[in-house]
Amino acid sequence: MPELFTVLPPADALQQLLDQLPASVPAETVDTAAALNRVLAEAPRATSPLPAFARSTMDGYAVRAADTFGATEAVPAYLTVIGESPMGRAPSLEVGPGQTMIIHTGGMLPAGADAVVMIERTQKTTEREIEVMRAVASGENVLQIGEDVKPNEQLLPVGHLLRPQDLGGLMAMGVTQVRVARRPRVGIIATGDEVVDPHVEPQSGQVRDVNTYTIGGLVSRANGIPQPVGIIRDNFEALYAAARQALDRADALVLSAGSSVSVRDMTSDVIGKLGKPGILAHGVSIKPGKPTILAVCNGKPVFGLPGNPVSAMVVGDLFITPTLWKMQGCTRPPLQQTAQARLAHNIASVPGRVDYIQVKLVEREGELWAEPVFGKSNLIYTLVKADGMLVVPADANGVQAGDVVEVRMF
Amino acid sequence: MPELFTVLPPADALQQLLDQLPASVPAETVDTAAALNRVLAEAPRATSPLPAFARSTMDGYAVRAADTFGATEAVPAYLTVIGESPMGRAPSLEVGPGQTMIIHTGGMLPAGADAVVMIERTQKTTEREIEVMRAVASGENVLQIGEDVKPNEQLLPVGHLLRPQDLGGLMAMGVTQVRVARRPRVGIIATGDEVVDPHVEPQSGQVRDVNTYTIGGLVSRANGIPQPVGIIRDNFEALYAAARQALDRADALVLSAGSSVSVRDMTSDVIGKLGKPGILAHGVSIKPGKPTILAVCNGKPVFGLPGNPVSAMVVGDLFITPTLWKMQGCTRPPLQQTAQARLAHNIASVPGRVDYIQVKLVEREGELWAEPVFGKSNLIYTLVKADGMLVVPADANGVQAGDVVEVRMF
Repeated sequence: MPELFTVLPPADALQQLLDQLPASVPAETVDTAAALNRVLAEAPRATSPLPAFARSTMDGYAVRAADTFGATEAVPAYLTVIGESPMGRAPSLEVGPGQTMIIHTGGMLPAGADAVVMIERTQKTTEREIEVMRAVASGENVLQIGEDVKPNEQLLPVGHLLRPQDLGGLMAMGVTQVRVARRPRVGIIATGDEVVDPHVEPQSGQVRDVNTYTIGGLVSRANGIPQPVGIIRDNFEALYAAARQALDRADALVLSAGSSVSVRDMTSDVIGKLGKPGILAHGVSIKPGKPTILAVCNGKPVFGLPGNPVSAMVVGDLFITPTLWKMQGCTRPPLQQTAQARLAHNIASVPGRVDYIQVKLVEREGELWAEPVFGKSNLIYTLVKADGMLVVPADANGVQAGDVVEVRMF
Repeated sequence: MPELFTVLPPADALQQLLDQLPASVPAETVDTAAALNRVLAEAPRATSPLPAFARSTMDGYAVRAADTFGATEAVPAYLTVIGESPMGRAPSLEVGPGQTMIIHTGGMLPAGADAVVMIERTQKTTEREIEVMRAVASGENVLQIGEDVKPNEQLLPVGHLLRPQDLGGLMAMGVTQVRVARRPRVGIIATGDEVVDPHVEPQSGQVRDVNTYTIGGLVSRANGIPQPVGIIRDNFEALYAAARQALDRADALVLSAGSSVSVRDMTSDVIGKLGKPGILAHGVSIKPGKPTILAVCNGKPVFGLPGNPVSAMVVGDLFITPTLWKMQGCTRPPLQQTAQARLAHNIASVPGRVDYIQVKLVEREGELWAEPVFGKSNLIYTLVKADGMLVVPADANGVQAGDVVEVRMF
């Protein structure tokens, strides 16, 4: 039983896996407009300054700041209006001493002018003259060339997860395509002689496949592309052939093993033969999820999950999700959503093991309470009824009712 | 200027908008396997119990509990092994008094048996006999029929946002298709004579369109389908025609107006003519984002955003995102990601207005600090450089350096 000497704490197990992975999956070019949530594989740079011309940040008048020196409401400066800076075009006139032009927010500052007076600080005296009732400094209410982005500046770093504002920022610079990490393809194999495709009516003794879909959902959520293989019978040759083929077509492989000991052993034998360095952890000190296998086979991560759907989900959330972000080279994956809540019941736990307890969040008198969802560990619907997991650390004996705890939403 | 009498606090403005919306967009049928992140429009129900047969939760022996009464290590019970319960099939034998069958985790309990003894609590004496060293109660280590889900039980409620485990849970019940809210289609119109398509090289005085892409990203993130219309010139007839057509094809409409006052007024005139009840808020007491228009036109939400990309993003995050979830009938939208951090600098603010300050999160000596990203409010890259927004409430004069603040990630 190799389990005896390679059961690892979850954080160590994950680190060992990540340490063995190559830098990241290959890059591909995609339209920036469709690159939300993708991870940059190359850092785009500015080819021009932003803005490319001095722009007004106000509706008002473009002036030579020196002409407004000392202007107040009592002693305004008088300027001659020579025209209007048109939106979207360079003004054809130049502002000379004592002159001004109407300008709109975002309009181009005409030659000669170096500042903008807000319209609220002016008053029209005639069609062609205004009073300026407040002095402006040179550059006031003006966005200078390159003030937002300088030429050749790196716009975003490699490993950055693209957000809505990043798409806008890139498009503003004319970066209409980007190099991003390809979405990792993840082969998913379900095993178990008792497991059938959910589309067919199970016979006596049969159950429908669950893990292909929970794991597929987790994979999609982390930007991956699930490649479900289907259900493979509990036979070494069949499982090995399916695993080998699925791994060749994918960037990672997940096997959800049957729950009985003999099937788990077969899964570990199959994974052991898929490539080097092979199995890194055979068992992880968590509950549920102890009989987890983590492996790297020829540069690709391979996960052997317990067949129990609750265990498979916990293990997928803990190991598959961060591995997929790492494979995309993501330097700051989405934060795990968490909620603070008061625990509704005492929970006992065994030191030396990290316990994941399914809880429901309930609001009572303005406070959020975490209520453990009890039930045998094989119940699929405890997962469905839960809002998240309470994590009881390895160094704790349990958690007391009334304690404020952090719930890992999922 | 209608702004003078309809400037609303942001929460009130949103509530007024949501109150005027119809229940939700129409439903559609999708494959459960592809329904991640979709919102249920009908509540699926169980047509059969789960599990459909009594299953073992352990590797061990199926027994009649009464036969183990009083068994201990010193005085074990002796049982005759009559066979093995096969995985995925109903056992052909029945367990009689004094008899037992080998059973695996997930295997079907044979007729006659009512409990399972863990293999660790047994010892083989001959090929056909075991010693049971501990008594089990009736039902012990057995998942009963319907213990997970009872027939006709509601599996998930209407308005539920489907998570990975929900997909698995539905497939477990043979619910391979679900009725979900259609993804809301959102027309996006950019205006401004100075704005050009990002794919072309801007001439002097021109800038590339940003808001179509930031808003498109926000819409996608909230499950919507962006329908970008492109850039419409600052002309009432052209803008009205484009808005009318876009709204007819979509479930919601976003107009990102030019920043100058005259163009903003034109946008409000256009929105005012799109349908009843029309404009609900013309101005919101937030900074940036004050010149926001919120409207409902013939049952569809219409947003007039300021042209300034930073304002447009803040307003989109505050109003468009929750509106899209509401349109899908979602009862519990994804939590806004937040982070606790210490503020690095004092920030002044004006009471009576909610201020959104862009901050970068920096780790120093194990603590997270929020550093305001300074810069003129029109700088697009302050958005790109920021990790989130610090919200200064309307009743505050500002926030002090060193205060622990909540940062709204985006």
